[in-house]
Amino acid sequence: MAVAAAAEDAVLAAATHAMRERLARPILVGQSDRIREIAESAGIGLGGIELIEAPDPVVASTLAVKLVHEGEADLVMKGLVRTKDFLRAVLNQEFGMRRGRAMSHVAVFESPDRTRLMMLTDCGINIRPRFSRKINIIENALELARALGIEEPKVAVIAAVETVELPTMPATLDAELLRRLGEAGRFGRCIVDGPLAMDNALDGHTAEVKGRGSPVAGQADIIVVPEIETGNAVYKTIRYIAGRELASIVVGAEGPVVVTSRADSAETKLYSIALGSLLSQSAAETAGREGE
Amino acid sequence: MAVAAAAEDAVLAAATHAMRERLARPILVGQSDRIREIAESAGIGLGGIELIEAPDPVVASTLAVKLVHEGEADLVMKGLVRTKDFLRAVLNQEFGMRRGRAMSHVAVFESPDRTRLMMLTDCGINIRPRFSRKINIIENALELARALGIEEPKVAVIAAVETVELPTMPATLDAELLRRLGEAGRFGRCIVDGPLAMDNALDGHTAEVKGRGSPVAGQADIIVVPEIETGNAVYKTIRYIAGRELASIVVGAEGPVVVTSRADSAETKLYSIALGSLLSQSAAETAGREGE
Repeated sequence: MAVAAAAEDAVLAAATHAMRERLARPILVGQSDRIREIAESAGIGLGGIELIEAPDPVVASTLAVKLVHEGEADLVMKGLVRTKDFLRAVLNQEFGMRRGRAMSHVAVFESPDRTRLMMLTDCGINIRPRFSRKINIIENALELARALGIEEPKVAVIAAVETVELPTMPATLDAELLRRLGEAGRFGRCIVDGPLAMDNALDGHTAEVKGRGSPVAGQADIIVVPEIETGNAVYKTIRYIAGRELASIVVGAEGPVVVTSRADSAETKLYSIALGSLLSQSAAETAGREGE
Repeated sequence: MAVAAAAEDAVLAAATHAMRERLARPILVGQSDRIREIAESAGIGLGGIELIEAPDPVVASTLAVKLVHEGEADLVMKGLVRTKDFLRAVLNQEFGMRRGRAMSHVAVFESPDRTRLMMLTDCGINIRPRFSRKINIIENALELARALGIEEPKVAVIAAVETVELPTMPATLDAELLRRLGEAGRFGRCIVDGPLAMDNALDGHTAEVKGRGSPVAGQADIIVVPEIETGNAVYKTIRYIAGRELASIVVGAEGPVVVTSRADSAETKLYSIALGSLLSQSAAETAGREGE
């Protein structure tokens, strides 16, 4: 795992924690002196960890992304660099991690009854995705769901209501069309339903009372929101009102991209790295099978 | 409290429960035979409750709203009638409950640490409110906050980020302008801040880490979302992931309007009536003071 601009205590703690848990072997990219200084004063051991010198956060991002591009690393993690600068490096045409599909942000959290994992997308990258971008967002989330071992993922495409309402609520039409694409087999083995209100996705009983029967009701693995404001606010409501940890990752590039925020807890950072590690392993296995 | 189309067991249970708790004295509008039949088979006593005959849900809504219009009732509650039909009666020019201000939906729930009440708006009426409508939405929420005894309400205007981002995120500009209107005294005694991401509103520590100091951070009384998808999804995340009860009410009309959904719990229904009762009492007191 290449860590871009690693000179921050919380980033170093997360990277070395992940190493101790055998989730990833970090390569720290940044100002080596500063990284060693911070590690020492925070009591973090860097034994056996490779450091690559980079004078500033933008160069560090470029070098870290290049490591993935050249096959030296499987995933990349954002350190103390502005998200915008970091993602620009990821998207670089020449040495970046593009693979001809839009990237999207997926958050993972426990289902209300804590029996399984659920995904929420997009909470951080796509602001107001058009229909074609929503297809990518679903494809990316399905890739992650399959890496998590969910054989037939159930996808709930969310709106404020359960029926198509035009012209007032265009998200409801997108949801209806995505459902039909799913039925037509566009997304492989999975069940896509929409438009569904959030309660239908989360609670089977509510869907029943409302007369909106759905194989996805109360059993959604993936919740697709219409725009970033909804994703972002729901993510943070889960974190700060439900008091639950989440992991999150950016999917759709050549390798998983871990973009945690400074405000994220140590657990969220560790879980996010674990998610990236799992996804890159699953991708390698798929590529291996395809190469046979 | 006039109950429109009261012939449903959950509605009758909520209305009579509210009466036992001395929150409201219900007047049931609808098919009286059917109401008596349902009450009997559900074991609900209707002693001392006035019934007003109405042949169908639309007429029942009209009559119930008219009771408020004519001062015979202080608030109105939706029973077994489509929300659209019910609100059409509320908005009727002749005998409805308009008072020259847009109506909006306000949900009330406990703060993350359960020490106080918070408000979320709009989760159910205004789909994609323009700037001027957002002013009304804040005014309505402030009216409720003051009825709840909050002397200087703190209002967080939510977006996906904490800075103005144009042209990609118009909600951030609205938030910035609403903050300035607040500073200029447009909303009376209160503090309005925005754009804030949801975590800043809910958690003071996060705001600190992010360097977005705000008197509202972690202390918001009112959370204003940019559009209905966000409000609706956050409401249901609080309900079904955080597992908390909410109350909700429509504010901005001549009297409070209780619009609970069939899927709402008995607690949510009771709390919502309590909220309406409190708001109508507070409005009466204010009017009394102004009349002195």
